[in-house]
Amino acid sequence: MRALYFDGARIGLKEVDAPRPGPGEALVRVRAAGICGTDLEIVKGYMGFVGVPGHEFAGVIVEAPDRSWIGRRVTGEINLACGHCRFCGQGLPRHCPNRAVLGIVNKDGAFAQYLTLPVANLHAVPDDLDDETAVFVEPVAACYEILEQAGLAGKRVAVLGDGKQGILAARVLAAEGVKEIALAGRHPEKLARAKADGITTFMISDLLAAAADPFSKFDAVVEATGRTDGFAAALACVRPRGVIIQKSTVAGPVPVDLSRVVVDEVTVIGSRCGPFPPAIRALAAGKVKVKDLISGRYPLARGEQAFAAASEPGAMKVVVSM
Amino acid sequence: MRALYFDGARIGLKEVDAPRPGPGEALVRVRAAGICGTDLEIVKGYMGFVGVPGHEFAGVIVEAPDRSWIGRRVTGEINLACGHCRFCGQGLPRHCPNRAVLGIVNKDGAFAQYLTLPVANLHAVPDDLDDETAVFVEPVAACYEILEQAGLAGKRVAVLGDGKQGILAARVLAAEGVKEIALAGRHPEKLARAKADGITTFMISDLLAAAADPFSKFDAVVEATGRTDGFAAALACVRPRGVIIQKSTVAGPVPVDLSRVVVDEVTVIGSRCGPFPPAIRALAAGKVKVKDLISGRYPLARGEQAFAAASEPGAMKVVVSM
Repeated sequence: MRALYFDGARIGLKEVDAPRPGPGEALVRVRAAGICGTDLEIVKGYMGFVGVPGHEFAGVIVEAPDRSWIGRRVTGEINLACGHCRFCGQGLPRHCPNRAVLGIVNKDGAFAQYLTLPVANLHAVPDDLDDETAVFVEPVAACYEILEQAGLAGKRVAVLGDGKQGILAARVLAAEGVKEIALAGRHPEKLARAKADGITTFMISDLLAAAADPFSKFDAVVEATGRTDGFAAALACVRPRGVIIQKSTVAGPVPVDLSRVVVDEVTVIGSRCGPFPPAIRALAAGKVKVKDLISGRYPLARGEQAFAAASEPGAMKVVVSM
Repeated sequence: MRALYFDGARIGLKEVDAPRPGPGEALVRVRAAGICGTDLEIVKGYMGFVGVPGHEFAGVIVEAPDRSWIGRRVTGEINLACGHCRFCGQGLPRHCPNRAVLGIVNKDGAFAQYLTLPVANLHAVPDDLDDETAVFVEPVAACYEILEQAGLAGKRVAVLGDGKQGILAARVLAAEGVKEIALAGRHPEKLARAKADGITTFMISDLLAAAADPFSKFDAVVEATGRTDGFAAALACVRPRGVIIQKSTVAGPVPVDLSRVVVDEVTVIGSRCGPFPPAIRALAAGKVKVKDLISGRYPLARGEQAFAAASEPGAMKVVVSM
């Protein structure tokens, strides 16, 4: 089959063997896959991954242990837990230390004609969710994780970062009833996308200037800047006893003023993958808009160009179709 | 009156005017005061404080708006809230942005013959609590804050740091029913104090080596090392979805691997001052032992030597009596 393969140095189109489903796994013909910030990090060497990246996808099952699944359109959760360790036993399969992660750790991913995943990881995609929209289930689920981890009802919330993650987070919070949301970033043209939804937007410099007043600080701050200075900005915006939900993963250590965390008794919650069902429901119901975040569409044959486009300043979600 | 005065460069005995109680304040004749890690930071310039430091004390009321308080032995909470801002209105006076802090911010403290505090900050000291023990109410209260912020019942907890704060934290957790506690530090002679209470102790290097196994990591880690590498150690010891209670305040930014916080969805809770009533009850009931942590006793006249002794390696709590 054809796939985008990262050999540790560069990513390129390659003819590779199609994956063969292991016990309990289904074979999925991929129809569309999205390029995520993590994929851009992977092709810089993050996680030391070698193979086929890609973990946001929609596809059709072509082989499955239960044949009634064949032909179903699906997307899938990316963590492949061992199923029998202590974390799996405690209902934390996403944190199984033995896990593989689709397109990230020890498991070839979605920028290919086929992928395999355990049936337990798969979620049916409703008919009214097209492939491009279904590609957003994984990143939207990661935004639902914020609501699972931090009770934000009635809170004043700042979302830092006007990239895909920040805008999706602001939209999910708005869709789920968070009334006061301030989305801050550095790109007026990106912020305009959220402003069109009725979300209040700020240039980050203006938000930080306003937050110099202790009574203007936020109850909760979602840090989705993807920048090394994002956490410091979040800390400057959050009120004493407030919560920072940390979404950005930046490689290597970042300088943090821990004494401020202590003196203001701030809570910092690391937040990664989230629950698929509410994300699928919200997308199917049209509660969370995503299509305007697609900034490029490429066929698999032009996958290298897709990665180049996704790396450009101003790029949002780039979708590769198979 | 005589006081230990920090002039921005050095601390020394000085004759200063006795403080005069403002509206709602009592005048307290100090009988004993403890030197805290924060005091040692203050005399290095932390917080830019100039004046009389000291915020752990026991004393006797000599003037009060309600004369029935006169003669009572008291200790006191250190944050002087404005009482009418939004944080005060929300029951967060310890986080009032307009607050002064006894011996730390804009308010002369306890290394003096007299101090003033609002009556609302004062707590009566029971007769069976001697002055030296009462000096520990403030730091023990800060340990009770851990229990208010993080539910630790049934959890495996590591406490990092074998100084006063770490040992007190381990003792408070043990006194309040946390069954599995591992206290880790760098000083066998300090760890021996906690070991005598039946607390399991480790050299920190051994604890870190054991925590390389993901299934040996802890549900919660109290970071009380006072060191710049303490947070990294806490992060290495905590399990996915676990909690770090950050107690150490180290000046300036510390390098933090935020991507580990995100990938493991760790929660970090900054923890500072705590509730006095449970601390007073526990000390009065003998549930939390403290006297063995006193490593030096000095009269106010020898306050400079007291600070020198408190700065020495191996020092624990140094108490100054007036």
